Amino acid sequence: NNYNIHDFDVPLTTVDSVLFTVQDGQLFTLLVQRANHPAKGMWGLPGGFVDTQQDTDLDHCAQRHLQQKTGIEAPFLQPLVALGNGQRDPRGWSTSISFYALMAHADCQHYVDTVSDVQWFPLAQAQQMSLAFDHTKILDLALKQLQQKALDSLVLAYALPETFTLTQLQHLHEVILGRSIQSKSFRRRIEQAQVLQDTGEVSDTQGKGKRPSLYRLKPDIAEYRFVRNLEA
Amino acid sequence: NNYNIHDFDVPLTTVDSVLFTVQDGQLFTLLVQRANHPAKGMWGLPGGFVDTQQDTDLDHCAQRHLQQKTGIEAPFLQPLVALGNGQRDPRGWSTSISFYALMAHADCQHYVDTVSDVQWFPLAQAQQMSLAFDHTKILDLALKQLQQKALDSLVLAYALPETFTLTQLQHLHEVILGRSIQSKSFRRRIEQAQVLQDTGEVSDTQGKGKRPSLYRLKPDIAEYRFVRNLEA
Repeated sequence: NNYNIHDFDVPLTTVDSVLFTVQDGQLFTLLVQRANHPAKGMWGLPGGFVDTQQDTDLDHCAQRHLQQKTGIEAPFLQPLVALGNGQRDPRGWSTSISFYALMAHADCQHYVDTVSDVQWFPLAQAQQMSLAFDHTKILDLALKQLQQKALDSLVLAYALPETFTLTQLQHLHEVILGRSIQSKSFRRRIEQAQVLQDTGEVSDTQGKGKRPSLYRLKPDIAEYRFVRNLEA
Repeated sequence: NNYNIHDFDVPLTTVDSVLFTVQDGQLFTLLVQRANHPAKGMWGLPGGFVDTQQDTDLDHCAQRHLQQKTGIEAPFLQPLVALGNGQRDPRGWSTSISFYALMAHADCQHYVDTVSDVQWFPLAQAQQMSLAFDHTKILDLALKQLQQKALDSLVLAYALPETFTLTQLQHLHEVILGRSIQSKSFRRRIEQAQVLQDTGEVSDTQGKGKRPSLYRLKPDIAEYRFVRNLEA
């Protein structure tokens, strides 16, 4: 009844976000350079402590830090993992609750261009960097989840412009998976899923053949899980 | 450098576990009756605060509370979800990091039989009870995850005795999904997955036909994900 957390050695709670985007056929992730100790000057994931006065919940906390540190409002923050132990932060026993999102490059580039301590890194480069805390581990886990989503679901359309061709959608899945997928099987699954609307318009891509149709995601399709995934 | 968590209003960190077992063709979940305020006397998930002195990490914390409150060592605690906000606990802003596991009934019944504040409840009943905090929500999320696993993977064999028939394995998946699945398709997938060993022995089930073969899970198959899930 008269529980006081200050009587205990309470662990820290931080929230971190992994953002992905695809640009020029390459997967990128967003990093920020730390302005304060510990790990001052190192690059890491955008995030920070829960503020019990400001943050209504963990998701809100993640969005607040993203907004403050990168100017980005992420469209769909998906829960990733909670990592907590006595070693990951020199300030004390600490838990990082992480989220991840894949977003369109266009939605976020303006602010990032204006500051020096926020930057999109090619994923392969970011994975080789020495990141703050255990952020390399969190980044690796996020990539694994994103790749599983690229097999299981169509959520990836959110990283494309509002209208897109089926070839663009397939290419996005391929960039994330790091390998090609069978076009026939991909299109059959998308058809079965019934999550795309034909806009009636065609792409203005230059080329010899018929111009490809433009599609958009049906409203309220936050995440569709393929009944058969793409490996089948 | 001289960061002191006691200068801040730090959120609480608790760890909670959802255990499932199948007995007599029915899914059960483990609840404990709370001995202390808040929610004293109510049933809830086994769990508690992180102890920064005792707990090496979140998983260890979950196992410690399970052991202390239920006598159970869970075989595979899978990460479930982190729920954190200012409303879920009257003691303050609080995050629950939850895990779940499906386990064989035989592995845990002895201790549970000896105490009155730990009990397996039929899942449908537990979902109707007024549980402590937001534990009903966590329980519902765990069921959803378990059902997805019953479609995606073979991990469920861990809830069976060491050797089992294919019919027993299929029945387990059906109990969790709450509906029947096609036997032919189920067996084909298991064959493709190559995760079972034929023991060379047969079940001593009484019946007219041929006695069914007994299988065991191959070692080191912690979790196999069906390439096609069972809905396909």
